[in-house]
Amino acid sequence: MKNKIITISREFGSGGRTIGKETAARLDLPCYDRELLQDIAKESGFAEDYVSEAGEYAPGGFLSSAFSHPGANPNNADYLWQLQYKLITHLAQQGPCVIVGRCADYILHDKADCLRVFIHADMDFRAKRIVQVYGQRDASPEQRLRDKDKRRAAYHRFYTDMKWGHAQNYDLTLNSGTLGIDACVRILCDVYGKK
Amino acid sequence: MKNKIITISREFGSGGRTIGKETAARLDLPCYDRELLQDIAKESGFAEDYVSEAGEYAPGGFLSSAFSHPGANPNNADYLWQLQYKLITHLAQQGPCVIVGRCADYILHDKADCLRVFIHADMDFRAKRIVQVYGQRDASPEQRLRDKDKRRAAYHRFYTDMKWGHAQNYDLTLNSGTLGIDACVRILCDVYGKK
Repeated sequence: MKNKIITISREFGSGGRTIGKETAARLDLPCYDRELLQDIAKESGFAEDYVSEAGEYAPGGFLSSAFSHPGANPNNADYLWQLQYKLITHLAQQGPCVIVGRCADYILHDKADCLRVFIHADMDFRAKRIVQVYGQRDASPEQRLRDKDKRRAAYHRFYTDMKWGHAQNYDLTLNSGTLGIDACVRILCDVYGKK
Repeated sequence: MKNKIITISREFGSGGRTIGKETAARLDLPCYDRELLQDIAKESGFAEDYVSEAGEYAPGGFLSSAFSHPGANPNNADYLWQLQYKLITHLAQQGPCVIVGRCADYILHDKADCLRVFIHADMDFRAKRIVQVYGQRDASPEQRLRDKDKRRAAYHRFYTDMKWGHAQNYDLTLNSGTLGIDACVRILCDVYGKK
């Protein structure tokens, strides 16, 4: 039997990570996010920060072409993608869990019983949140958000050929700005429990 | 104070109408859908079936150019749009309710406290459902669904300049095929009650 897994894609600053962690805590499941990065970093020999950034660049950009991993073919982003693919597949075989980001919805579509979630919020909500939560000091958090959105969408599109944020790709999409973080957690626990 | 209104956009065959009606019944609210069409038809002098069809064609198509309403400017679709706009605005002023389809989310974005919902499901689920519920006799229900999807998306895009089915345009989007009709109703009642 396939494991029941919640995969959360999210816009930067929407609280997707927090929602993932709280949902996992209430359901008594492990939640993988930064932990996932650390494992990839350990296995790849790259620094965690580098893996985090590369995970948002579709191949063809500066990072991927200028610093190719010696054993990689054809570039770092693809090399990291393969590691990520292997690792997420492995995690999904271990048991039910919550996985935030990293295209887990796509990687696991035929390997687990996934509840595919997308969390988003409008620009104002996210701009306030990244300043509060991450202590961003940018003159324009909105510009940073637009840049992050573009990168995540391009990365997702490149590796999955699916449109990021397109309702049809998910079981449910939630606006954390209008619904609130708590309501999102409550809905996910309800749906997962009945799945 | 603005009225709390649930607006439901939906893919044809996804059960969006049923979800709207059941949610309204449980929350003891009126639900407008076919009733809305009947009112528009009465006021416009067009037959209900014609209004139903025209509500899915963006202007410029055969229907709109070939049969212009004498008093309309520049065409029937625009004339019906204006009636629909007026009628939905009027309904929203009367009290809390559920409105299915007809771009109500867009029309009411600054006039009501809307919970904006999009219901969708994959092709298989919808194809089976339209045969069961509507008794479709088409050789290819899938072709009919694709056609309906295209029309609704084009109509919505023309009048609202918003992408139909794009998660960011809604408070929540639900896959009725994977979640089930009952779960969708339960989630909407929960969120509306806490709003």
